[in-house]
Amino acid sequence: MAPSFVTNGGVAPVKTTPFVGRLASVYSDVQTSRIDHALPVPSVLRSPFKIVDGPSSSAAGNPDEIAKLFPNLFGQPSSMLVPNGVDSIGSDQKPKIGVVLSGGQAPGGHNVICGIFDYLQERAPGSTLYGFRGGPAGIMKGKYVELTADYIYPYRNQGGFDMICSGRDKIETPEQFKQAEETAAKLDLDGLVVIGGDDSNTNACLLAENFRSKNLKTRVIGCPKTIDGDLKCKEVPTSFGFDTACKIYAEMIGNVMIDARSTGKYYHFVRLMGRAASHITLECALQTHPNITIIGEEVAAKKLTLKNVTDYMVDVICKRAELGYNYGVILIPEGLIDFIPEVQQLIAELNEILAHDVVDENGLWKKKLTDQSLKLFEFLPQAIQEQLMLERDPHGNVQVAKIETEKMLIQMVETELEKRNQEGSYKANFKGQSHFFGYEGRCGLPTNFDASYCYALGYGAGALLHSGKTGLISSVGNLCAPVEEWTVGGTALTSMMDVERRHGKFKPVIKKAMVELDGAPFKKFASLREEWAIKNCYISPGPIQFVGPASNAVNHTLLLELGAQA
Amino acid sequence: MAPSFVTNGGVAPVKTTPFVGRLASVYSDVQTSRIDHALPVPSVLRSPFKIVDGPSSSAAGNPDEIAKLFPNLFGQPSSMLVPNGVDSIGSDQKPKIGVVLSGGQAPGGHNVICGIFDYLQERAPGSTLYGFRGGPAGIMKGKYVELTADYIYPYRNQGGFDMICSGRDKIETPEQFKQAEETAAKLDLDGLVVIGGDDSNTNACLLAENFRSKNLKTRVIGCPKTIDGDLKCKEVPTSFGFDTACKIYAEMIGNVMIDARSTGKYYHFVRLMGRAASHITLECALQTHPNITIIGEEVAAKKLTLKNVTDYMVDVICKRAELGYNYGVILIPEGLIDFIPEVQQLIAELNEILAHDVVDENGLWKKKLTDQSLKLFEFLPQAIQEQLMLERDPHGNVQVAKIETEKMLIQMVETELEKRNQEGSYKANFKGQSHFFGYEGRCGLPTNFDASYCYALGYGAGALLHSGKTGLISSVGNLCAPVEEWTVGGTALTSMMDVERRHGKFKPVIKKAMVELDGAPFKKFASLREEWAIKNCYISPGPIQFVGPASNAVNHTLLLELGAQA
Repeated sequence: MAPSFVTNGGVAPVKTTPFVGRLASVYSDVQTSRIDHALPVPSVLRSPFKIVDGPSSSAAGNPDEIAKLFPNLFGQPSSMLVPNGVDSIGSDQKPKIGVVLSGGQAPGGHNVICGIFDYLQERAPGSTLYGFRGGPAGIMKGKYVELTADYIYPYRNQGGFDMICSGRDKIETPEQFKQAEETAAKLDLDGLVVIGGDDSNTNACLLAENFRSKNLKTRVIGCPKTIDGDLKCKEVPTSFGFDTACKIYAEMIGNVMIDARSTGKYYHFVRLMGRAASHITLECALQTHPNITIIGEEVAAKKLTLKNVTDYMVDVICKRAELGYNYGVILIPEGLIDFIPEVQQLIAELNEILAHDVVDENGLWKKKLTDQSLKLFEFLPQAIQEQLMLERDPHGNVQVAKIETEKMLIQMVETELEKRNQEGSYKANFKGQSHFFGYEGRCGLPTNFDASYCYALGYGAGALLHSGKTGLISSVGNLCAPVEEWTVGGTALTSMMDVERRHGKFKPVIKKAMVELDGAPFKKFASLREEWAIKNCYISPGPIQFVGPASNAVNHTLLLELGAQA
Repeated sequence: MAPSFVTNGGVAPVKTTPFVGRLASVYSDVQTSRIDHALPVPSVLRSPFKIVDGPSSSAAGNPDEIAKLFPNLFGQPSSMLVPNGVDSIGSDQKPKIGVVLSGGQAPGGHNVICGIFDYLQERAPGSTLYGFRGGPAGIMKGKYVELTADYIYPYRNQGGFDMICSGRDKIETPEQFKQAEETAAKLDLDGLVVIGGDDSNTNACLLAENFRSKNLKTRVIGCPKTIDGDLKCKEVPTSFGFDTACKIYAEMIGNVMIDARSTGKYYHFVRLMGRAASHITLECALQTHPNITIIGEEVAAKKLTLKNVTDYMVDVICKRAELGYNYGVILIPEGLIDFIPEVQQLIAELNEILAHDVVDENGLWKKKLTDQSLKLFEFLPQAIQEQLMLERDPHGNVQVAKIETEKMLIQMVETELEKRNQEGSYKANFKGQSHFFGYEGRCGLPTNFDASYCYALGYGAGALLHSGKTGLISSVGNLCAPVEEWTVGGTALTSMMDVERRHGKFKPVIKKAMVELDGAPFKKFASLREEWAIKNCYISPGPIQFVGPASNAVNHTLLLELGAQA
């Protein structure tokens, strides 16, 4: 294939030449069809607009401390793009803008960059866009590429972060801030867009404050990225990538459900990505109606033990066996173990023992565990016990992340069912199958929603920078309406912040948005889960469609949180 | 949703009422859009037709023995449906037909049944269709359901086998044949359609021979089903489900590839379903261009050892490291271990030792292993050694199927790379991620290809039975042309058979179609794999589309085998 036009989000096509960055790439039919897809965009982006400020803002918590930490930025108003007779923004002549991807992949990242690029092309003549390579390290080391129409063309509406790649470094120390200043000065940067999660956006705000405090011209705008869906607030209704990732996982879960029902003999334990919050698991449950879903935040709030979780599963499995159903689907969030207080306690004790004591083969070391931790340790399957003792990270700590929670739960359920079998309360034959859906969802082709959402985030970020704004996060709203009616603007990053005390100092943080047990998505799930447990209400969402009536559906979490779905 | 019309494959819609079998089901948008999809069908099925026989057939091998085993059926000609002024078939008044699903799920099974049903509705007035529940056991136990328009409606173009479910029992012993005869007599069956793989179709032929030899009226027609793609011959170019399953796996592989390239630090080891043959792995490789692909048939033909396979991987990883690529994607067929002669030998020895000897902790038992097996055993990672010793099936045999080959290979590659690191020939940091794509692919919504292919297989099977044919497998050809031009007919099952000698007797078998090393798909792969290994030629097929230009592509294996692709 040799496509030769850019769609520019439905605006005038621009002549280009074949791939540069994805040089060796041959594209599949679907990839090709997406590149030249005429993306719907908010109508405000298609006409001349100006930027209007709202009232001054506060902080998510401890405003006095946030004000001290961000003396130059605290209190900034939110901004909104509104149609205007003529474009009234443009503080820079020939602006130079940088963009960086930070942290884990999320579908749509490329479109944010395309949105920034198109803004600059269309409304800031003579501008330059630099892409920092490999995440924030690219800023510190001055590793960048100039992004041209030709260069970005093959990434339009495509998954992945490979246009400039990402990284997990942070700009934290005074030396690192200095490096960033040097790069900004060297490239004569008027602005920088940081595409990342809660940490990266906190970092973006610190950088903005730093530049401002030194009277440097470089302004910084953040963009909300994470498939985990835990970076959001009233003005930033969702993070990009969540919609696509959940739909990819839900496709697989739906397929496994139909398989479970057809085969009639397996319980599928599906672990889903999302270490801190369980939004992905909750959304997938709302899309597919599994028999059992564990939400980490509920486990933590109710202070459930691993035995409680196991018993809940076993109770449902026994009830289903009575109804003749010896199959089912169970969703588990990747971070489940982190939500269980007793497990945290055990791990802390183990780390202490492993650091200071001899672990003897006869198990005398176990006497150093507290009663509760010993009981839990003995309750764990042997393979997990061994994993806890053997696998450590470079600091010598137990590696919880390596525990395959779904396999652990299968073993614990098996053990408990054997007991019930001996007691006569369970007579069927339990067979567990384990799955982990993670990497498959981070780099899929973005859904129509994520493609448009990201493009608008990027286009808006370009406008905010160009108008002289700094320390804002790009925010696109009214997301349950048709794309044309979406709002585009920016929200003060300081308004999303609170402080945490670390090493005797206050540190600013954007708190992760956890699943709220009194929020609409969880309440809907909680009202239906008993029916889902016993009856088979499986829904199979099927593969993401890019054309046709099924292609524009928005995820349940967003609809419910915005009150657009009962 | 409450849809109220059946499309009948583009023919006149039939009024119906909401779901019965999938009673509690709510459908996703995509599921709903598929139910009422106007399916393209071969044009011969839209007009009156007659059935024309070809020349008499032989067998795939040992025709004399096959002739002895099938005295009534051997030599039957192939049949073809050809347009005719009026429908000239219909040997039964108000025919009664049964259908059964046998073995593992494959996308499209429901459409085979819909095709049979629509044939009977349209061309055999007063007919009845029975669905035997839970596979061949349903025939033996007389467990069935009458399939009505209302009952089958919600399954049109849907994945899964849950309309009547499947099973792995076989009708083998004289008693079991007797039971089948009794059910056929009780239901006054004129015909039976057996939807299954190589074993099930062999079984169908034995049943057909048995009924014919006893002058019973029940005729039997087979249908080629298996995602593994290993049931095919000249007249049966592919088995249904292969197309959909490969596209689902390829979607996930493509996503993981973009992730690998974006992250730049993981080698993803992807094990793919397909125990006997490596067609799925080969097809997925052709769709996605991974860095390394292991084809079981090649490993067997070249008598490669596990060490050879590991070295091949490590060589590519080292070469890529020199080029600065410390990431990649590696495809492995589920059945890899079964293809390695030395592993088979080790397992045989272990089974013998475990059955008769004491396995002492000091490892003295290992002296009973041959030198070669001992060497291999010591080469295996400890976790695999333990798995081989501990996990046994009910007969006490080592369970090869439980070995997670992808994890084993990661460990072996790690060990080898450490060696090379110490030697100075590898300096990078290797991180493996393991995946198994299996259950996700068996019950997906069938692609447009599988949906039409299955419908035509079923419609054709109905016509063959109605015209008095028995012992044929439904066969649809000319598959690279538009659906309208496909041919529909039947092929003598005996013509696909050879014999195997078991327990001193000849047993008829339809030999599994393995990946042929001089076949077009493997040759194309082999000509490109060196480039794929070093360069990054990844293709991301994206999610299966049901609408638009990307929705009707046929898989590479089929196109290459039919000579429609270079």
